[in-house]
Amino acid sequence: MANIKLIIEFDGTGYHGWQSQENAKTVQDTTEAAIVKITGEHSALAGSGRTDAGVHAIAYVANFRTTSRIPPERFSYALNSVLPDDITIVWSEEAHEDFHSRFSSTGKKYRYLVCNTEHRPAIMRNRTCHISEPLDIKLMKEAARQFVGTYDFSAFMAAGSGVENAIRTIRSVSLEKHGEIITFEIEGSGFLYNMVRIIAGTLIDVGRGKIPPDAISDIIDGKNRNNAGKTAAASGLYLVEVYY
Amino acid sequence: MANIKLIIEFDGTGYHGWQSQENAKTVQDTTEAAIVKITGEHSALAGSGRTDAGVHAIAYVANFRTTSRIPPERFSYALNSVLPDDITIVWSEEAHEDFHSRFSSTGKKYRYLVCNTEHRPAIMRNRTCHISEPLDIKLMKEAARQFVGTYDFSAFMAAGSGVENAIRTIRSVSLEKHGEIITFEIEGSGFLYNMVRIIAGTLIDVGRGKIPPDAISDIIDGKNRNNAGKTAAASGLYLVEVYY
Repeated sequence: MANIKLIIEFDGTGYHGWQSQENAKTVQDTTEAAIVKITGEHSALAGSGRTDAGVHAIAYVANFRTTSRIPPERFSYALNSVLPDDITIVWSEEAHEDFHSRFSSTGKKYRYLVCNTEHRPAIMRNRTCHISEPLDIKLMKEAARQFVGTYDFSAFMAAGSGVENAIRTIRSVSLEKHGEIITFEIEGSGFLYNMVRIIAGTLIDVGRGKIPPDAISDIIDGKNRNNAGKTAAASGLYLVEVYY
Repeated sequence: MANIKLIIEFDGTGYHGWQSQENAKTVQDTTEAAIVKITGEHSALAGSGRTDAGVHAIAYVANFRTTSRIPPERFSYALNSVLPDDITIVWSEEAHEDFHSRFSSTGKKYRYLVCNTEHRPAIMRNRTCHISEPLDIKLMKEAARQFVGTYDFSAFMAAGSGVENAIRTIRSVSLEKHGEIITFEIEGSGFLYNMVRIIAGTLIDVGRGKIPPDAISDIIDGKNRNNAGKTAAASGLYLVEVYY
């Protein structure tokens, strides 16, 4: 049995996230169906984590076991020939037999895109979060830096997540504006449910002047979800990399 | 009667181009229908030129006459409230009574995006032209420069266009690669039917090594459509600006 690692790009607009669900189109189910078509085997496809409906991935990682004699590096070509055009396998290879896309992971990088224009964007709809009010980038940069470190991020976790340990390490962040697009990137050991979208929503509130940048540490320390900003739209979020 | 100028962004994926057609969804018809909804008047919406099915616009210009008492600068907000989300009016204002979006134009700028990746892009599908072979950017830059000047561009015009005078002036071009995306921009006095897409297809052939960069002048001089490259995909083309 070969353990095949896939790197998957997907436009999440048409999907109810990664994870298999009854009565809903998901990236996992769609990719598993493509594997059945190509190999004739019903393989369980292990993913590197859940993603919400509408969230995108530049390089989601998944793995499955197969007895197929397709060369590992050819799976990308074979699967792309049967996958819909909003899912692309950008890379395939044979991984170590112990490799697991979720449990072997040492961290992730996410990107969040805000389109800061007066009117809703037509071309970048479903690809960004649209904010029409002017945002102060300098304040947002100052606030973004406060997230680096090891903290209990309970204030930045969706209510009812039921996670025992909310301590996570954020290794780096960056925030830049190019034209009308604000790009926020965050890399860390792991992320709580909705954590990046809540951080993005908080940074947007900082940009609007509703939250001062130096309040971030207090919001983290308070461990109260109500002190952070709203969960920003799923359409602005991209999983960029999974580290091993 | 006020002459209202609109600047329109649209994702052309779902449309059979700008120009009104029987039995096909077009940007012109969709925007005219929105004007009827807002003003109650059936106004003819004059556009700055035809666009092909699937071609996008960052700033298409159109104008119409109305007796509506909506303040000119509020038309963008009013129309966006009834337009589908793949068409956005990014600006509206009252123009001079003689202003015509096509006849008053002194030139246009187009952008063409190539996604140069091994596998088809999922997120940038319908937004770029995908070319999987490696492209030599240096050769493409060299070739792009040859288009600047005033020439008879018959070789870069769709067959059967029936234009009497194919002389056009290209004022500037640029070609850059950032990551996997090659951005080609071209500005000129006017463009023949399919001209930018044929130039893009020719530059792609240069990048592949099929056409040497110094052959461009000969191709222009030959005035023979068969010597130029194929018409590149509509999905990579954006109307960026109309000059007045």
